[in-house]
Amino acid sequence: MPNTARPTYETLQRLKEAAGIGGWSEDPSEIAPHLVEWRDRYRGTTPLLLKPDSISAISRIVEISAETRTALVPQGGNTGLVGGQIPNSDGTEILLSLKRLNRIRAIDPDASTLTAEAGCVLAAVQAHATVNQRLFPLSLASEGTATIGGLISTNAGGTGVLAYGNMRELVLGIEAVLPDGKVWNGLRALRKDNTGYDLKQLLIGAEGTLGVVTAAVLKLFPSPKAIESAIVAVPTVEHAIRLLRLAQSLGGTITAFELIPRVGLEFALKHISGTRAPLERAHEWLILMDVSIFGESQSGIAQHILTEAVHAGLIVDGVVSQSIAQRDAFWKIRDGLSEAQKYEGGSIKHDVSVPISAIAAFLDEATSVVQRAIPAARVVAFGHLGDGNIHFNVSQPVSAIEAEFLARLADINLLVHDLVHSFGGSISAEHGIGSSKIDELTRYKSLAELDAMRSIKRALDPHNIMNPGKVIRV
Amino acid sequence: MPNTARPTYETLQRLKEAAGIGGWSEDPSEIAPHLVEWRDRYRGTTPLLLKPDSISAISRIVEISAETRTALVPQGGNTGLVGGQIPNSDGTEILLSLKRLNRIRAIDPDASTLTAEAGCVLAAVQAHATVNQRLFPLSLASEGTATIGGLISTNAGGTGVLAYGNMRELVLGIEAVLPDGKVWNGLRALRKDNTGYDLKQLLIGAEGTLGVVTAAVLKLFPSPKAIESAIVAVPTVEHAIRLLRLAQSLGGTITAFELIPRVGLEFALKHISGTRAPLERAHEWLILMDVSIFGESQSGIAQHILTEAVHAGLIVDGVVSQSIAQRDAFWKIRDGLSEAQKYEGGSIKHDVSVPISAIAAFLDEATSVVQRAIPAARVVAFGHLGDGNIHFNVSQPVSAIEAEFLARLADINLLVHDLVHSFGGSISAEHGIGSSKIDELTRYKSLAELDAMRSIKRALDPHNIMNPGKVIRV
Repeated sequence: MPNTARPTYETLQRLKEAAGIGGWSEDPSEIAPHLVEWRDRYRGTTPLLLKPDSISAISRIVEISAETRTALVPQGGNTGLVGGQIPNSDGTEILLSLKRLNRIRAIDPDASTLTAEAGCVLAAVQAHATVNQRLFPLSLASEGTATIGGLISTNAGGTGVLAYGNMRELVLGIEAVLPDGKVWNGLRALRKDNTGYDLKQLLIGAEGTLGVVTAAVLKLFPSPKAIESAIVAVPTVEHAIRLLRLAQSLGGTITAFELIPRVGLEFALKHISGTRAPLERAHEWLILMDVSIFGESQSGIAQHILTEAVHAGLIVDGVVSQSIAQRDAFWKIRDGLSEAQKYEGGSIKHDVSVPISAIAAFLDEATSVVQRAIPAARVVAFGHLGDGNIHFNVSQPVSAIEAEFLARLADINLLVHDLVHSFGGSISAEHGIGSSKIDELTRYKSLAELDAMRSIKRALDPHNIMNPGKVIRV
Repeated sequence: MPNTARPTYETLQRLKEAAGIGGWSEDPSEIAPHLVEWRDRYRGTTPLLLKPDSISAISRIVEISAETRTALVPQGGNTGLVGGQIPNSDGTEILLSLKRLNRIRAIDPDASTLTAEAGCVLAAVQAHATVNQRLFPLSLASEGTATIGGLISTNAGGTGVLAYGNMRELVLGIEAVLPDGKVWNGLRALRKDNTGYDLKQLLIGAEGTLGVVTAAVLKLFPSPKAIESAIVAVPTVEHAIRLLRLAQSLGGTITAFELIPRVGLEFALKHISGTRAPLERAHEWLILMDVSIFGESQSGIAQHILTEAVHAGLIVDGVVSQSIAQRDAFWKIRDGLSEAQKYEGGSIKHDVSVPISAIAAFLDEATSVVQRAIPAARVVAFGHLGDGNIHFNVSQPVSAIEAEFLARLADINLLVHDLVHSFGGSISAEHGIGSSKIDELTRYKSLAELDAMRSIKRALDPHNIMNPGKVIRV
């Protein structure tokens, strides 16, 4: 168990010394932004911010922490949505920022790999790949701030997962400081390696509870020559799934397949300036689809997919972007859905996934369940349909009092998550567990799985110093 | 520690009872084929073959084994190449065959998933996907015998990895019996799920040392409408890598990219009936490339790639298959390389990978190193160039005595594997560790990694009953 008392003066001195000159801060104004999550949902406190810029310093910091049973909370860009990067409120935990560890160590266009340190911002990695005529396909709203270490530790998703996979699929090798302070150099740039347990897979998605990811070898891809976008109206969500399969069978590299509900479009048109309706009439469900074009022969494939989809009775209307400006306009609607909801009062959100073939049934049932509980609640279900990942958000009834609506959060979460579970789904498709879902996890995971997770945590971090109270309690 | 004595009469009786009627055998003639690997490199012995056909029976078997400290060796199709599926020779280990657990439980074409039990043969899974207009892309020489459980436990590779990934990338969910006998139902059919440590990743590639995989949810893909194959001659291996990048940038879905050396082609033409030279002249290096065609617009892309490659100076000759028969003829050469070597006397083989951009340098140096040790040794380096995975095989000098050549096996392994390691490569790209490379592993892995592997093994299998003496010693 980590100390539940504030670290001693001596421990703090040793940690500062290990972090080196410029590698720490006790200045409350410098520390403050690290202690609050951007939506102000999670707040913590710490006596010390460590911000080392070398692996050896991190190794020494973790070693001292293990020896003194001092809890460490690793933090990257502080964009996590489940509180995983925020220390607790009792002042016993040390914040370990990886932001200064931000070199791109290497790029190898022939091998199609890039080696980046944990503190590199995603947008910088994307840009570095692009100037080398390669693509790093992970893409999400916070890409200007989120860092590689955090993205690995949370197995980030985003809009590119359909074609390129989650962060897990994009990592070839990892360097990490393990909970005893040892540096593990697993920076392999190999596509195939069957030499024992794949340790990097444990660190990916562990939210800093099994060690500190310090660098990674990432996979790059060919850059598309162009991307054709389309917005289409489908009669039902089942039709949308069949449209996806049709598009894939026609040879389209479908790199995004996003669901937009009627109410979501209405919110966006009302609140996000510069948006306009993409189709003449209103429809219950729209799909925003990106098709990446690599070879000349693929040019025009989005239009071809739409033509075939009309013949197959899968879509009732649709439009293909004719310019980059039009494409941006399509995406403005999709990207504005979350923000637009803010102007409609309180919202209760769920980041869930179910098997793709069950999405339509899930959406029907979940909407019924929520509207039985709160009759005029407005369900705004949108997101990564192609991955089975739906942001099942619920906006308050127009006439409700926000605080009263938000007081139902736990009830509604329970209803939706129980239903997700009954569909064999996940209560956290993208965002992780952090501190916010740690108790819910015990409701939905089997004892066998929780036991195995606890055994692994205890085996690798016997003093529970790495981000305690996140993901799993030991 | 498992017992080092033969299991007691009472333990054997309890295990037989748990396996049920028809679920075990003590008949030496039935057991014999399970105790020898097909090339006769590994032989073991066992007092009892268990062949249960239900999860509950396996759960009970593992529970009894944990209680009585009896070692279990799981076995699928017995096609492994590193001895992982063969019990030791002292008669203390029980063989647990998964072959009767062979139902395909479900296929969901909309979700593009298939759920198969551990004993399903790969070819049966491929066929089941095909009749449902989907593709299960894992493909390897032993696909008529290898089973899903074994393929997962060894994270199998094969010829489809370049486009579709290793077995690890093809598994969405797993059901397994853990080393305490608990059944873990992790049969999730989800593309996104961030709810704690990804346990399935530990079981994949663990070679049965962390539990018994009993079923899995597998990813399916759109079936290609056609596959265009080409054989091209490249001046150097570097040119081949650039050809791959060119082909990918032209929009080709390159589903195989296999290196064939001049000597390999010569061996195949000499020893494999029905093969013939694909090009007029002899060349140092050939590439066999498959391009999968999904949409009509992609038809003819292989020829387009060849034309562009000639312009770019990357290839000196090439031919595109004009019929399925011609395609089969190209693959007959590639598939015959291993067999053809048999007729050239002894061979010393290495299943290695290095970063793709280092392959050319590695091949040069490895050839020099081997030929310094054995001057007239004939290097036959072939395989999955697109993945950086080379089967670096060495055939004996024409005039050498086979036994004398093979006596050098350990020396040559050491030279080649040391070099692989210095290139940041893997000494087992596809085949795993089993019993054959367990000692070598300690030479090439860091203490940090070996310690972490041991901690995990001890945490999940405290009595070391699951396939002891494979992958890692505790």
